[in-house]
This record gives sequence, structure tokens and C-alpha cells, in this order.
Amino acid sequence: MKVLITGGAGFLGRRLAVKLLERGSLKGADDRDSRIDQLVLVDIVQGAPIRDKRVRSIVGDIGDPDFLKTTIDAETDSIFHLAAIVSGQAEADFDLGMRINVDASRHLLDICRGLGHRPKFVFASSVAVFGGELPEMVLDTTALAPQSSYGTQKAVLELFVNDYTRKGFIDGRVLRLPTISVRPGRPNAAASSFASGIIREPLNGEPAVCPVSANTRLWLLSPERVIESLMFGHDVAATALGTTRNINVPGLSLTVGDMVSALQRVAGDEVVNRIEWKADARIERIVSTWPGALDSRRALALGFPRDDDFEDIIRQHIRDELRR
Amino acid sequence: MKVLITGGAGFLGRRLAVKLLERGSLKGADDRDSRIDQLVLVDIVQGAPIRDKRVRSIVGDIGDPDFLKTTIDAETDSIFHLAAIVSGQAEADFDLGMRINVDASRHLLDICRGLGHRPKFVFASSVAVFGGELPEMVLDTTALAPQSSYGTQKAVLELFVNDYTRKGFIDGRVLRLPTISVRPGRPNAAASSFASGIIREPLNGEPAVCPVSANTRLWLLSPERVIESLMFGHDVAATALGTTRNINVPGLSLTVGDMVSALQRVAGDEVVNRIEWKADARIERIVSTWPGALDSRRALALGFPRDDDFEDIIRQHIRDELRR
Repeated sequence: MKVLITGGAGFLGRRLAVKLLERGSLKGADDRDSRIDQLVLVDIVQGAPIRDKRVRSIVGDIGDPDFLKTTIDAETDSIFHLAAIVSGQAEADFDLGMRINVDASRHLLDICRGLGHRPKFVFASSVAVFGGELPEMVLDTTALAPQSSYGTQKAVLELFVNDYTRKGFIDGRVLRLPTISVRPGRPNAAASSFASGIIREPLNGEPAVCPVSANTRLWLLSPERVIESLMFGHDVAATALGTTRNINVPGLSLTVGDMVSALQRVAGDEVVNRIEWKADARIERIVSTWPGALDSRRALALGFPRDDDFEDIIRQHIRDELRR
Repeated sequence: MKVLITGGAGFLGRRLAVKLLERGSLKGADDRDSRIDQLVLVDIVQGAPIRDKRVRSIVGDIGDPDFLKTTIDAETDSIFHLAAIVSGQAEADFDLGMRINVDASRHLLDICRGLGHRPKFVFASSVAVFGGELPEMVLDTTALAPQSSYGTQKAVLELFVNDYTRKGFIDGRVLRLPTISVRPGRPNAAASSFASGIIREPLNGEPAVCPVSANTRLWLLSPERVIESLMFGHDVAATALGTTRNINVPGLSLTVGDMVSALQRVAGDEVVNRIEWKADARIERIVSTWPGALDSRRALALGFPRDDDFEDIIRQHIRDELRR
């Protein structure tokens, strides 16, 4: 089978690629294991090369429909659509967010529709589709009320993926991903960037700023588990999904204070003291509208994986990233 | 002030135009009455002329962004966006639905944004944004899960109108309109067309086909009250609306059997016997996903009008339409 990953040079895309190559197969349209023969990675930037004969990396702007068309052909069986303008940037540059998160994504759906063979389409959505006056626990039946342009754009795509699926154009799966922590690497323009920074930088002996208060509740997922969730979401049988293709991927519900306590238990006071608490109204305004917990019973019943606790996630980060 | 109505030659658009001219004013951005000096009616077809110096009728395709731009200028204060590809047609012709219900509507939002003065934007949405496994009473907080392309497209616009409002580009108001009954005139391509046909045709001495079962529950609004609701939705103060601009316009919750009983009480057995009950799977599939009742407490608290009962609506139809 031939698999495409948009955002293939990004944090999630690259990890997913490596894991797919390692595993070597995904479930096809017939729900049976199918060997991955070709893996196409598309991104706006050139990522570090992956030395594997099955991989083809293409650099280009998915906002350009003519370019996008060249990345997909009749053999493309599965698409992981991970490319996006992140929350902070989509809020700062409205037109860019619309161009990539809505228009490019819709072109991608239309190209998939044109293939005629109903490819699998895994869409990375976000807890940012929720907002407003939220219940303590967000249910599958809670209304979408995004309070950011990023959340709006993700919600619009959720609707399209569901309708394109209902019409038989694609076999769509919408995965509402929790905030990923601990992301390796450097801070980015996502409003949630601090959720990794306050763990990662202190462990590296560097200072970190926490722009939200300690009682801010986040819905978190580890880098290891998010990749497993993306593959599981691809492989789950269409017949198990019912009238909605939206899946609340299981996360851990923690306050920022809980996260810092876990860091203290794993790494000690000296590390935790590198965090400076300095409120940032712009970040707080965005993050405070996101839900701190989602009802994931449906996903768990389907068999989605979940993290055990945040201390484990921190230890996983130390093992995988700091020891390099 | 200058007011634009898209779909201005349609059933709702024309009635709204006549009523606005009669009333002569709407509330401006300062929540004070402002005289309507110019009323622009845009539609794909030429409507029956309205002889009034304030009216300008423009015929063209709002799917063409260049045409659309010519209908709006710096003086345009308020837009009633009523033009749409109706439910049955949007399901049959997916691309046409997307072109008008999504793309043209978004161009309209972008033109409004370009004006820079935050015009009022009243968007006619629909109960079709709901679907799937619905609670008996649909609350403001019930998730959108449209089961038709029309409902999907309306839901997408709801999200955009809210985000454009949040960003300060427009002052948007989303009115989720119940099914209108009794519409005068002829049947149309809406899946809900029968909800008027089963009353209107028998009263005219003509046969009518009811394509759904008697226990199908509908959420209904009269032609008189829908026009009042559109004007009220325009005039309600922005400060009264809170974090969401979506408003469930109050309707009456009736089964098709209740509607026919009301017709029997008003017009007798001979009229009712002109209805032939003949199930149509295509119509039933669409209509059965719509909610039969919505929680409209918020709209009622804001002061939105509502119908008293369906017999009154039938008598209103006889008075206004049959006696002509």
C-alpha cells in the first residue's frame, strides 16, 4: 500500500513515518494487514532524511492545489493529514490559518474524492474545537464552540471529513488529539507550547516560563501514545464507528500544578526551580477555553491506548531524548 | 442605512423586503432605530418587481466572487444572508451546495470583513445542523452532527460567522430557523417541502403526497413569525448574545399527524382526504435526522416571537394566501 503523510517533516509526521516503517504494515480497506510499499512525506520544509527505500520526501506548499495534486495518485491508499498552522499562529495570521487549515485541507479531501476508491483519511483534530461554557467533562455530544480561529478551522474540517465519509468519498477518521507533552526540540508558535517547555527546558538545565496559572487544567498525551493513537485510528474498522467519525483520543487530565509536582518527584527541586511563573494574557485567553478533560469512553471501548501517569511520561522523555 | 438581502427574490427574501420597507427602519450599530434608505435585493432570478424608490434589484450568481463584490459597498450596514441551495438539491448536487452554501457565503463574509466597519450579518441557518443520536430536546449545548450535506454546509457557516464575529470582522447573528409552514406557492427541492404541501395543496382543492409517516416530528414556524424573527435577530443588542451567536429560533413541535389533525379541525374531512400517504425513503432519510424540538429558552428570554398554535398558522395561510 501507498501512504501519504502531510506535515511529514514535523514532530508528529516524522515520528509516525519512522514507526510505520518499523511496523511495515497498516490495515487496508478490507481490515487486513497490508504491507507499506511506499511512504510519501510532504512538508513545507525539508526534514532530516530518513534512509529507507520506501520513503519519498516532497517539499512544497500544500496551500497550492497544483502542488498538492502531484503528491497523490491512484495508488494512494491512506492519508494522514497532520499539516496545520498551529493555534497561536492561526490566531495571529487569520488568512494563513484559513488558507492551510481550511482551504488546503479541503483541496486534499477533493483530491481524495477524485481517486474514486475511498481512501482512508486520518485527520488530526484538536481539543480546541471545544470552548465557551464547557461542562467539567466534555462528552461526545457536547457542542463545538471553538473560541479561537484554529479551533474553528479544525471544527470545520471535522464537519467536512464526516460529510465526505457519509457521501462515500473517503473513509475518514477524526482524531481529537490532546495537547502533546513532552514534545522534544524547541518551543513553537502553538499556544500550548509551554506544556512541553516547562518540563523539557528545566530537565535540560535551562530556564522556562509558565504563562498560565498552576490551576489551569490540561488534557495531555505523550509523544509515544499519540503515534500509537494515529495508527490505531487508521486501523479501527469503519463498521465500529457508527454515525460520527469524531473520536476523543484518551488523555490524562492534569493541572499545570500537577505536572510540576510530577516533575519535582522525578527530577527534584533544583529542576523545578528553573520554572518562572509569569502570566501571559494572550496565551491564557486561548488555553483557558480548551477543555481540561474529555469523555473518551468510546475511544477506550474501541481499544485506543492511553498513558498511565505523567511521571511515566516524564521518564519516557528523559529516556528517549535526554540520553541521546 | 443600506441593507442587503441575498436570496432577495425568494420566498423569505421578498417577504422580508416588503416588511422592512413597511417598517422603514432597523436598529443600527448603536442599537438605535436607523432609517432604511437603500434596500438591495440580490438573487439568481428576477423577482416580481417591488415598486419603491429605496429598492434596487440585482440579478446574478453569488457563486461568482466578482459579481458578489459589486453588490456591496462601504455604505452597506446590514446583510441578511438568506440565499442557499436547499437541502434536497444540496444532497443531489454536492458541488453546487458547496459552491453556494460554503464558498459564496465565505466570500460574502470576506467582503464584509473588508468593509472595516463591522456590518451586521444575519445568517439563516437550519435545524438540519443537528442529527445523529439526538436527545428528545435539543439544547444550545447539543453537538452539531449534521447527517446531510446541507446541514454540514450550514454548520460550517455557523462556525465561520461566530469566528468572524469574535475577530471583530462582522457583527454576526446565526438564526437556526425551524421548518417554515405553510409556505405559499409551489413545492420546491427542499426535503421539507411536503410540510407546506400537505396543508397548502388540499386547501387549494389539489391532491398532496405525504412522504413521511404520521409520527414524524417537525419543528415548525409560520411565514409571518419567521420574518419577525429575522428582524428581531438583526435588532437584538450584541451585548445580550454572550459567547455564541447561534440562536435556536422558537418553533412549534408537532408530528405530521398533529398537523393533519389541525387541518381537519380548520378545514374538514374533505380537505384532509386529499392527502395521499406514500413513503419516500430519500425524504424520510433526510427529515428523520432533524430534531423535532429545540430548546429555545435563550431566544424567548431575548424576546423572540413565537407562534401560538398550528391551527392559527393554517388560518393565517387561508387569510393571506387563499383569499387573494
